[in-house]
Amino acid sequence: MIKTDMLIIGAGPTGLFTVFEAGLLKLKTHLIDALPQPGGQCSEIYPKKPIYDIPAFPEILAGKLVDNLMEQIKPFEPGFTLGERAETLDKLDDGSFVVTTNKGTQHNAPVVVIAGGLGSFEPRKPPISNIVNFEDTGVAYMIKDPEVYRDKRVVIAGGGDSALDWAIFLTDVASEVTLIHRRDEFRGALDSVEKAAELAKLGKIKLVTKAEVKELHGKEHLEAVILKHTDKEKEDTYLEVDHFIPLFGLSPKLGPIGDWGLEIEKNAIKVNNAKDYQTNIPGVYAIGDVNTYEGKLKLILSGFHEAAVMCQFAYQQINPGKRYVMKYTTVGGVEGFDGSKKEAKKEVVQSIA
Amino acid sequence: MIKTDMLIIGAGPTGLFTVFEAGLLKLKTHLIDALPQPGGQCSEIYPKKPIYDIPAFPEILAGKLVDNLMEQIKPFEPGFTLGERAETLDKLDDGSFVVTTNKGTQHNAPVVVIAGGLGSFEPRKPPISNIVNFEDTGVAYMIKDPEVYRDKRVVIAGGGDSALDWAIFLTDVASEVTLIHRRDEFRGALDSVEKAAELAKLGKIKLVTKAEVKELHGKEHLEAVILKHTDKEKEDTYLEVDHFIPLFGLSPKLGPIGDWGLEIEKNAIKVNNAKDYQTNIPGVYAIGDVNTYEGKLKLILSGFHEAAVMCQFAYQQINPGKRYVMKYTTVGGVEGFDGSKKEAKKEVVQSIA
Repeated sequence: MIKTDMLIIGAGPTGLFTVFEAGLLKLKTHLIDALPQPGGQCSEIYPKKPIYDIPAFPEILAGKLVDNLMEQIKPFEPGFTLGERAETLDKLDDGSFVVTTNKGTQHNAPVVVIAGGLGSFEPRKPPISNIVNFEDTGVAYMIKDPEVYRDKRVVIAGGGDSALDWAIFLTDVASEVTLIHRRDEFRGALDSVEKAAELAKLGKIKLVTKAEVKELHGKEHLEAVILKHTDKEKEDTYLEVDHFIPLFGLSPKLGPIGDWGLEIEKNAIKVNNAKDYQTNIPGVYAIGDVNTYEGKLKLILSGFHEAAVMCQFAYQQINPGKRYVMKYTTVGGVEGFDGSKKEAKKEVVQSIA
Repeated sequence: MIKTDMLIIGAGPTGLFTVFEAGLLKLKTHLIDALPQPGGQCSEIYPKKPIYDIPAFPEILAGKLVDNLMEQIKPFEPGFTLGERAETLDKLDDGSFVVTTNKGTQHNAPVVVIAGGLGSFEPRKPPISNIVNFEDTGVAYMIKDPEVYRDKRVVIAGGGDSALDWAIFLTDVASEVTLIHRRDEFRGALDSVEKAAELAKLGKIKLVTKAEVKELHGKEHLEAVILKHTDKEKEDTYLEVDHFIPLFGLSPKLGPIGDWGLEIEKNAIKVNNAKDYQTNIPGVYAIGDVNTYEGKLKLILSGFHEAAVMCQFAYQQINPGKRYVMKYTTVGGVEGFDGSKKEAKKEVVQSIA
């Protein structure tokens, strides 16, 4: 059982910054996220897109925002349970909570903070009847560890940036990369489209357009796929493969959190307006895009602010009766749990006569 | 009469970021600040101090934070009335407001946003009976334009960073720089103290410690000061000078805003909790350190968030009945009033076969 002061569900920008604000209050944190890496949408959906409305950044790439946050929170040594979805919430007799993931990992903390963004991103799956049989035995909807594909025959399906970028990346890893798309046009960043075109010309990516994977075959592990072509004159293609990776995008779903007994409004969790962002379950907070209250703005900036305010109240819950006096970081510096200490250069007092 | 959509009182970080959020909504802004430059405390009090709790900046100097904000808001061409203090607020028959400064400059807007921080920074004045007679004729408590002191004899009083830094700076401008301090020790950044000591040794700064300016003399303009020494055996010093600049620090005062009929609590302006940050006067908002509500945190971050939320409501007031649909900057980009346009690189749709 993983134990911490504050359990954060969702490792997007809001969840990550919560580690910092909690750390200033000497609270330990642990994050759970269904995605295989921290950063939420910023890392998974648009790492290379610029954001213009983060204060004091005239422009910052979403991926860089996540890198900066990871650096900022490093001194507070957060724990991570990644690639697992928070499934159930149980309350213990001592008032603390246990959150269990879909893989059975258990976490215990007196305070739970849901920073789940638009929900956990669930992959859009192609309509192939037996596809679930091959999940974990040849079919994956996200690439967690590219080394899995070393010297294997891989079929990627999709027409967007993810399909293009992973097809390009895996040419250096897999023994064979086939990219399948049901149209003959791809939609992505210019350099990705051009790079894929070049690799296709060199034969490093086998390109099959106007086609879809319709059948999966194999005994214990995936062994082959069958492609159907839009052009009905064309015969189905039988292709021996080790892995099939359909990258048809992710769609956010509130998911199991919706069954935790929280008050839900417009697919978001209702919190008491800006006071402390607590939900109808005392000890469970909701911050960032996942919450709703009068005047709510779904901005990364607002998630950051909500994290700061929420931590002050959660502190009282974790340390009842203890008084915390907020010190500005400019005055008090930042003391990491790793022994690091950042602080402004001290003034000197000395005679200059 | 200066006319704008949103009149912002206070050009600290919160006031500056308001320009950006208003600009996204196509609202024009104008800022008033008693200090001679934008940035509030960050520029005036601690430009060289690092801040550690701005999201996604593991560390940023306060002065750099202001520089970044100025760059971020540039496309929205804000107007500035600097070095003047907002003195009176009047409501016109058309429902709009007129704000007049201590120098008589008038500003008109349908919405007034008070982002006044801890108040306007008023200099601490030395207790010299006739000092007010020489304000603007030889005595200044802040340096607005160093060129005023070109080839003049200047006496600076004070023992902190401002006194040290300006004494150092003016050695290249003034014909004579005298630095007077009532103690014999200075308190400041190590490099400032060392640099001042070096210039004192070279005779470029005339250093007089354990002394205070007690009298000012002159007809139309300051002509001389009289110094009294702590050592009572020492005779008073008569010093011919053109300018006397006591730099004894600034202390924040809510000032004239306190008389505008706003509901005040703990020296701050009460707003309706986090809904829209409106004060008891409809059309007048208060954001950042100057406001108070349940759970208020005096963080720069909170001022930024409050600016974003407030602008959405102010938009409705300025454009009644008009519906604004928020677009993420990552999707919609940023269109400046100066004709500039920032946006994410467009995706391309093309065949790579």
